[in-house]
Amino acid sequence: MPDTWGGNTKLKITIKEGESLLEALRSQGQDIFTMCGGRGTCGKCRVVVLKGTDELAGPKQTEKALLSKEDLNSGYRLSCLTRAIRSTTLEIRIPPESEQSQQRLMVSGTAPAVRLVPAVRKIFIKLPPPSLQDTTADLERLTEVLKKKTGLDHLEIGYDTLKELPYLLRTGCWEVTTSTFRDKEIIGIQAGDDSNSCFGFAVDIGTTKIAGYLVDLTTGKTVVTVSSLNPQAKFGADIISRITYSMKGKEAAVEVTRCIIDAVNRLIREACEKSGLSPQDIADITVAGNTAMHHMFLGVTPRYLSLSPYPAVLRRGLEIRAADLGLQTAPDSRAYLFPAVAGFVGGDAVADIIATEIHLARDLSMLIDIGTNAEIILGNSKGLLACSCASGPAFEGAHIKQGMRASQGAIEKIWIDPQTLDVSYRVIGGIEPVGICGSAIVEGVAEMFRAGIVNSRGRICGGRDTQRIREVDGTMEFMIVDRSLTGIDDDIVITQSDVREIQLAKAAVYTGISILMKRMQVKPEEIRRIFLAGAFGTYIDPSSARDIGMFPDIPLSRIQFVGNTAGAGARMALISTPIREIAEKVLHKTRYVELGADSEFQKEFMSAIDIPNADVELFPSVSHAVQANGLTRRKL
Amino acid sequence: MPDTWGGNTKLKITIKEGESLLEALRSQGQDIFTMCGGRGTCGKCRVVVLKGTDELAGPKQTEKALLSKEDLNSGYRLSCLTRAIRSTTLEIRIPPESEQSQQRLMVSGTAPAVRLVPAVRKIFIKLPPPSLQDTTADLERLTEVLKKKTGLDHLEIGYDTLKELPYLLRTGCWEVTTSTFRDKEIIGIQAGDDSNSCFGFAVDIGTTKIAGYLVDLTTGKTVVTVSSLNPQAKFGADIISRITYSMKGKEAAVEVTRCIIDAVNRLIREACEKSGLSPQDIADITVAGNTAMHHMFLGVTPRYLSLSPYPAVLRRGLEIRAADLGLQTAPDSRAYLFPAVAGFVGGDAVADIIATEIHLARDLSMLIDIGTNAEIILGNSKGLLACSCASGPAFEGAHIKQGMRASQGAIEKIWIDPQTLDVSYRVIGGIEPVGICGSAIVEGVAEMFRAGIVNSRGRICGGRDTQRIREVDGTMEFMIVDRSLTGIDDDIVITQSDVREIQLAKAAVYTGISILMKRMQVKPEEIRRIFLAGAFGTYIDPSSARDIGMFPDIPLSRIQFVGNTAGAGARMALISTPIREIAEKVLHKTRYVELGADSEFQKEFMSAIDIPNADVELFPSVSHAVQANGLTRRKL
Repeated sequence: MPDTWGGNTKLKITIKEGESLLEALRSQGQDIFTMCGGRGTCGKCRVVVLKGTDELAGPKQTEKALLSKEDLNSGYRLSCLTRAIRSTTLEIRIPPESEQSQQRLMVSGTAPAVRLVPAVRKIFIKLPPPSLQDTTADLERLTEVLKKKTGLDHLEIGYDTLKELPYLLRTGCWEVTTSTFRDKEIIGIQAGDDSNSCFGFAVDIGTTKIAGYLVDLTTGKTVVTVSSLNPQAKFGADIISRITYSMKGKEAAVEVTRCIIDAVNRLIREACEKSGLSPQDIADITVAGNTAMHHMFLGVTPRYLSLSPYPAVLRRGLEIRAADLGLQTAPDSRAYLFPAVAGFVGGDAVADIIATEIHLARDLSMLIDIGTNAEIILGNSKGLLACSCASGPAFEGAHIKQGMRASQGAIEKIWIDPQTLDVSYRVIGGIEPVGICGSAIVEGVAEMFRAGIVNSRGRICGGRDTQRIREVDGTMEFMIVDRSLTGIDDDIVITQSDVREIQLAKAAVYTGISILMKRMQVKPEEIRRIFLAGAFGTYIDPSSARDIGMFPDIPLSRIQFVGNTAGAGARMALISTPIREIAEKVLHKTRYVELGADSEFQKEFMSAIDIPNADVELFPSVSHAVQANGLTRRKL
Repeated sequence: MPDTWGGNTKLKITIKEGESLLEALRSQGQDIFTMCGGRGTCGKCRVVVLKGTDELAGPKQTEKALLSKEDLNSGYRLSCLTRAIRSTTLEIRIPPESEQSQQRLMVSGTAPAVRLVPAVRKIFIKLPPPSLQDTTADLERLTEVLKKKTGLDHLEIGYDTLKELPYLLRTGCWEVTTSTFRDKEIIGIQAGDDSNSCFGFAVDIGTTKIAGYLVDLTTGKTVVTVSSLNPQAKFGADIISRITYSMKGKEAAVEVTRCIIDAVNRLIREACEKSGLSPQDIADITVAGNTAMHHMFLGVTPRYLSLSPYPAVLRRGLEIRAADLGLQTAPDSRAYLFPAVAGFVGGDAVADIIATEIHLARDLSMLIDIGTNAEIILGNSKGLLACSCASGPAFEGAHIKQGMRASQGAIEKIWIDPQTLDVSYRVIGGIEPVGICGSAIVEGVAEMFRAGIVNSRGRICGGRDTQRIREVDGTMEFMIVDRSLTGIDDDIVITQSDVREIQLAKAAVYTGISILMKRMQVKPEEIRRIFLAGAFGTYIDPSSARDIGMFPDIPLSRIQFVGNTAGAGARMALISTPIREIAEKVLHKTRYVELGADSEFQKEFMSAIDIPNADVELFPSVSHAVQANGLTRRKL
């Protein structure tokens, strides 16, 4: 069976005269390089043109600047800058580094190759029709032939499939395709030969965003990727407010569940429409999400997740009839829900582990998935520790004066000149800025710290030769962009209160990391890799995160961005059922650490509020920089 | 574990002054001896009074006539004739022969004792509540304690139960009773200790009648027996007309299924009300019925059962979520449906086999279950042959001029004096007759034959010195009761056409029997036992059935009435799950013979229309009687 996700996907693509390769890919539903602005600046939409080079205009200076000579000689092009001279069909290859750049989509994630072992197998069979001499019942007729052809014995049959069986055998003139689930149960029958068409859907349900992947189970390839915001936001931005809403009564609880199920049904319909399929073609579903999303999706009360000691209703992975959940896929299709480590370390974290394979590594790894909550996992093949920190919504731009989501108009990068305190910034979409996204606020605070605008206690200090540091209504703030340059009728600033929010949030994350390290008795330098997963983790500047003391002081080269590993893990479990068994093993290998029950939590947290930390010895490389800066400052 | 159904049930019963024991039993919901007319004639309501004899009036002459001296000395009484002198509480024992006389109820059946191994086990457990030091999830907390207490591992959990789990753990203050199904799945949780209350429901779905048994799964005892007519009758009296109705369209098919499911739900409610339970207390259900009833109950199309070559949709036994079928029992309760041998030999026949144990016997046995269709099974422990004969509805009183069901006012017994041709008869309920039930018609035809009123071709012959034989509108008939003595404004007669109906029906049955015997190469004398099952089989006079050539000519002592063995088999499978595995084995041991495909069918059938048979040598004992009668007749 073919390995999947090794990268190097080959594609045939029709391109019209004058069209760019990126436009051609997009118009044909190849939903890659979606973060590419098409302006030839990021260099992340690299492809190799295998056939049809002559029909393309040669690379201009901009493109040449972003590709090495070697690359150019090997046929590399940037798809946003490559235009066709004539309409033609090209053959291209997407190199692995470009597939990884899909991380920017926030729905993709790094993942190892897995063997193609889907839960659902389709088998085409021909049956002898019944006669007075052979009055074998329909089901036994079917299972006998299936046994002869595949060796599968003792097959059960789904109830809905059973009801359809007699009709489909006859409309198919005794030639049908069966779908079997895990070689145990017949979950679908189709008239005629449909054995080459078998699809599944993987979902990552985040508190904020839902990502879905329509996967061809005969190849393991993702056919279409779709995503949407989690419409549960109407019940509250964070998990606790949604749980509180669901506790209003039975109807509210049903409403919260229905909302998320409907959203997944919509994504399934969207993905199917894009690929010319029907939701009835989806035979298997995998779902990863945090424990609250998992419970709500399952229609199991999340109530007790919000009440100390926050136990989950269940941890184990579940394979359940999709129809029981209200999913509108094939009648007897199944949904697999990842197991959850604990009330606040969910199936998404297990999927993260699976996709990063930290449970297989000899070396110590740490995985940090930052959302409204930050899940932290530390360990190696010998065992894993996991915890969840209430990092709060600051990293998502909430509770920040001019905070916003990482969408059009958000400042996503900030540089401050330590000498002049001049500010440079980059805006998503390249338009006038309207706010600051979470990762940029972290960077902004780090830059303010590095420039001596903020001291180690987090206080914005005046006394510098700049109009940018000022007091407004008794509160200090630092101006990032003057109102004349913004898209709003206001300056864009980072206030003292914003800095405090970031201090609290980063302290929560560091406290989690620190307690896990202490429990495992390891020092920062022993951690060989830090995987940053999730939306925030993909955009954050690691040196900024380290300098403000959110991450331990380890070489930045050990930090690896892995994107949406929860989604990647969900796809792995969809393509390869042994992953589900591995998930269960991971679960038993992972010990949950309840931070609230740790005696050192308060002390650690208080210490971690400082920048980078009250215990500066924990951050030797940062403290060196601080001293250097401090000296510089003092000289001025 | 206790053996069940050994008979000898002991009861405490409160009786009022002047009340009969039968009345007392009935008023207290002890639904036994329901066929007893209360007139001290049948002698089938025998009980042994253990305590309280002094409070009862002594037996009078009628009662003494029906009980032996030994019986009287042992405390035997007839409950319909035993009245209390003073209000008191009695202790009585129901002897096995009286429990068997419940066969007259048509819902009970002979059955061997089985070991108590119900599918559902209830276990009371105490859990440690969660704490910050122990945040184990609810389900894993439960399964860990269950494993410690019972050794059960890898328990699954029903979806509905899972949803209730977190609430019930907490309302029960971490003390709950779990219901496990086949030691594999948790299908129910109750707060507190409810481990002594565990109930199941067995159903026999007949084309005409449905019988239900509420069984205490902790003892194996039947708590309440209920029955009703099958309300599907509104779609047609026989199976084919109901199938035809269901083929009108999707709605009609759903209607036919809903009708039977509703009827079973009503029976469950009735049984639960009678015993102070709720349908939610029913954790397991077993269902036996013919294949058409089975398919309709299951919501699987019966369409192809009516089209040659009449294959069933499935044969195997099924354990299915009761809720999926629309049964309103405990949320994750299961329904077990008996496997079916073929399209017209259903799960009721398998239950018949199980209850009579003919699959275990060395000796050859034959089982005949006569309803609208007659199922015949022949064989022993080495193997079984089964067939179904379209005996038609004549045996149920349909297509007969004055035929009626075996209910109040039906003539149930006919005697004809061969000399005077005077007729004696017995009427159900002891009132003026309004018609003739099926078994009495068979008896009537046999009596007419034995009295020389009907010849071996089935023709009603005149020329006798009686007004009873007469021609009306060109058709011969024999008058059973003069209108002055009936409850209707008409004579009660048996017409030439009635005799023909009986000839066709009995020929169908005999042809089935004959073909099975030929296939197995056995002669009538090799058959050691004939079991007569079902309503008709219970009431029929075996010598009449033999004399008209419906049954082969074997000694009458080998014929055994076994009552509703389908219901008995359903109860066995409810009490003891190994029976379900045995049912599957029986299925594989039983070969279905499609009569329509047998080359000798036409010849056999033609021959069997004669009384007793055109081949008189097959019925030596009958032909002897015929000759004797013939001689007598010729002499007159």
